[in-house]
Amino acid sequence: MQAPRLEFWYDFASTYSYLSAMRIETVAKAHGVKIDWKPFLLGPIFRSQGWDTSPFNVYPAKGRYMWRDMQRLTAERGLSFSVPSPFPQNSLAAARLALVASDRDLIAPVTKAIFTAQFGHGHDIGDATVLQHATTRACVGRSLDSAQMLTLSVDPKIKDRLKAQTAAATSHGIFGAPTFRTQDGELFWGDDRLDQAMAWARAQAIGE
Amino acid sequence: MQAPRLEFWYDFASTYSYLSAMRIETVAKAHGVKIDWKPFLLGPIFRSQGWDTSPFNVYPAKGRYMWRDMQRLTAERGLSFSVPSPFPQNSLAAARLALVASDRDLIAPVTKAIFTAQFGHGHDIGDATVLQHATTRACVGRSLDSAQMLTLSVDPKIKDRLKAQTAAATSHGIFGAPTFRTQDGELFWGDDRLDQAMAWARAQAIGE
Repeated sequence: MQAPRLEFWYDFASTYSYLSAMRIETVAKAHGVKIDWKPFLLGPIFRSQGWDTSPFNVYPAKGRYMWRDMQRLTAERGLSFSVPSPFPQNSLAAARLALVASDRDLIAPVTKAIFTAQFGHGHDIGDATVLQHATTRACVGRSLDSAQMLTLSVDPKIKDRLKAQTAAATSHGIFGAPTFRTQDGELFWGDDRLDQAMAWARAQAIGE
Repeated sequence: MQAPRLEFWYDFASTYSYLSAMRIETVAKAHGVKIDWKPFLLGPIFRSQGWDTSPFNVYPAKGRYMWRDMQRLTAERGLSFSVPSPFPQNSLAAARLALVASDRDLIAPVTKAIFTAQFGHGHDIGDATVLQHATTRACVGRSLDSAQMLTLSVDPKIKDRLKAQTAAATSHGIFGAPTFRTQDGELFWGDDRLDQAMAWARAQAIGE
């Protein structure tokens, strides 16, 4: 039997994507599921819905709830947590860098390091220095040049790949992050649904 | 030790409130928590956010996802499921009736019967006949007059109580349904959070 696969669609500015990024490898291992990490940009999708910022800023009661909810959940899970300023952050450079890391089989550690820099420590992931430090930390013991990775991340090919990935998210019907997508196209939205998505991916693989 | 309490805030037009209404008694019993059923109206809250209908209609991709999600979850839980037309339904009469049922210690069975009529069988809960049938079904073996309960539900005192309850929801920071609220004012939004809310209510009661 081929290992079941699950796509993990995330935006670096998304608070709940942080929660999923920090635990998805452990959950996937327990289920025997292989993860495809899919950074994309929610900004264009939000703008097409008439929002020029995060819905957590557009709707203040929802925003207040979300920050409290993140505080509770990160405490429960032993994750560090800071509210970054500004929120939402510009996630464009981080998403491009993650694609470069993907080509080196480093997308998981680089993604986690970037999320931790932002939501664990409150750093600005629009800042190239923050991204470079995160990359270096993520890849300790690997011979790579994080400065070179950043340079590569603004290559037109990488820019186009991120655009294509964001277009794919839209065409899959993705409207928020994190979203988990199975090979048969089922969507599961939100960190709360990670286990349900894993179970679906497994059931599909064994032909249930 | 006093039994911990948890408020269950719901709108009859809310799909995910249906899911919670059908299981909250079982979950509460397992946790030793007492539930306060709190029907209210999301309409005024949504209107204050600039929406004149359900966000699931305002944002089509989110709406498509929600219906598929409801289909999967009701199937998993062995609940019947129909998409009511129109959606969202007018939940005003149902919410008033639930307050009358509350005064007779019948709010749980009446609430479940109304939700089942709507999302289980696709009936229109804006229709007084549907509400009366649901009430009669909910109260088999109890000597009550469901027609009289419907008449009482349009009494100005009941109307005012529903307005006050909706105003209380707003002042508690509630922006969606279902929402679970603990005695110390913590909010937990969504059927996904029912267990977390119960655990919080219990921990609070034993002074953790």
